[in-house]
Amino acid sequence: MRLSLNQRTTKRWSVAEAVDGCVRHGLEAVGLWREEVAEQGLAESVKLVREAGLRVSSLCRGGFLTAGGLPGEEGRLAFARALDDNRRAIDEAATLGAACLVMVVGGLPGVKPGEPMPPGASRDLAGARERVAEALAELAPYAGQRGVKLALEALHPIYCPDRAVLSTLGQALDLSLPYPEEQVGVVVDTFHVWWDPRLFEDIARAGRRIASYQVCDYLHPLPEDVLLGRGMMGDGVIDFRPITEAVLAAGYTGDVEVEIFNAAVWAADPDEVVATMKARYAGVVLPRP
Amino acid sequence: MRLSLNQRTTKRWSVAEAVDGCVRHGLEAVGLWREEVAEQGLAESVKLVREAGLRVSSLCRGGFLTAGGLPGEEGRLAFARALDDNRRAIDEAATLGAACLVMVVGGLPGVKPGEPMPPGASRDLAGARERVAEALAELAPYAGQRGVKLALEALHPIYCPDRAVLSTLGQALDLSLPYPEEQVGVVVDTFHVWWDPRLFEDIARAGRRIASYQVCDYLHPLPEDVLLGRGMMGDGVIDFRPITEAVLAAGYTGDVEVEIFNAAVWAADPDEVVATMKARYAGVVLPRP
Repeated sequence: MRLSLNQRTTKRWSVAEAVDGCVRHGLEAVGLWREEVAEQGLAESVKLVREAGLRVSSLCRGGFLTAGGLPGEEGRLAFARALDDNRRAIDEAATLGAACLVMVVGGLPGVKPGEPMPPGASRDLAGARERVAEALAELAPYAGQRGVKLALEALHPIYCPDRAVLSTLGQALDLSLPYPEEQVGVVVDTFHVWWDPRLFEDIARAGRRIASYQVCDYLHPLPEDVLLGRGMMGDGVIDFRPITEAVLAAGYTGDVEVEIFNAAVWAADPDEVVATMKARYAGVVLPRP
Repeated sequence: MRLSLNQRTTKRWSVAEAVDGCVRHGLEAVGLWREEVAEQGLAESVKLVREAGLRVSSLCRGGFLTAGGLPGEEGRLAFARALDDNRRAIDEAATLGAACLVMVVGGLPGVKPGEPMPPGASRDLAGARERVAEALAELAPYAGQRGVKLALEALHPIYCPDRAVLSTLGQALDLSLPYPEEQVGVVVDTFHVWWDPRLFEDIARAGRRIASYQVCDYLHPLPEDVLLGRGMMGDGVIDFRPITEAVLAAGYTGDVEVEIFNAAVWAADPDEVVATMKARYAGVVLPRP
């Protein structure tokens, strides 16, 4: 299997620096973020990854499709804006030749990521989930025309209020099934799904729908900012090997991205982080030979 | 439906004070905790609730059955100790005439509630879940002989490392099915299950297996101590009515316990807390008339 550096793991690195880092450490793939690509410039980013001979294992991220659940004109405008932004994300993923566009679908309508629930936000979880399905019906054909695969990411239920109303792999998978496999797939991210009693059943059921396998550990206890609870593999509670073996058995042949949001990892020397990441990948993520 | 005060909502109150409070506020049921019952004395607690004419809607709690997953003698002893303690809890529930004994089954072997993962703890989640099933096979007949119903509680996945490897209602339900309905049921606790995409399907499937319906809100963001993220109904992200309606439609006729762990609620005047609880129960939990 193929190790890929998601550039948020080495947050201080620009696209150019992340590409250099991958080459220096012998990695063949990189996961990019739209914000950093915009800073580097899209054309320049394409040039950098091509000249380095890297695969772009994913582009993060599209999504945030639920604000259409707000009432009236506000909801209609928010839905239209979200679709526009996602079409741009799809275009960028196509230009980069990314293996997929990771979709973080958004939380309850009116709740912003990492912020408290404001007055006027919606508690209609079922409705928010319907908005996601409606948006997908608009975006999947657009992605298909551009050769981009949308990768629906189930997030840990702790993020349900503000980041993703997709909470399990099975739910993401069910949402993907109406579309061709090359248009809509799912992400298996160990941090988000390790606890799920249906995980192994749903990985097998997903099969070739698995568009991305992302690994990082789940720290316990989580830090106060729960977004930063993603740890280096081996530092948390996850037993990775059975999950990796199940993903392989399901037919996944893509890159394995390491995506860590963590204050200590971000404070460390990025080259040391990548070296540790390679060692841990071999030590605790890959199946025993 | 019938409102019950789980005594941890008014944490400062002893059993005697909680019983008085229920009577003063016109409640017909109380949920008790083993620790507070022990402080009051078991016989005295029985006398207090009987004289007040209250139902005991639940006794909290049995469980913590997973330490048997530790290797060797340590695991064997821990498993035996856990079974002994649970038999005592069952005896207490029988003496109190509690409608059920709530079971919080325990997290990864060797991880203590609210504490970091120590060296030597286990990452074998599947194994921990098997230990729970093994313990249940020992305890269910014992409970049945004493007329006590074990109520398996799925906890929010954030508590999977340290408090409960039962993470969804469906998983708890599947675990209960081999036993008679009067021996093993499940808890529907809104805080723990509100996000679950299979919630309504699993409530319907649970039917008369629902042994306890507990309500409190899910605060967003959670406080640093995630145990204290349980809020007064209406203060968080949960839309209660559809869940209450589903629980009723499934055939549940028992008490509805309000169980809130929350620093601000605990700091407030308990009588005001109970008054607010009654108002919110009518205002956001019960179905519209």
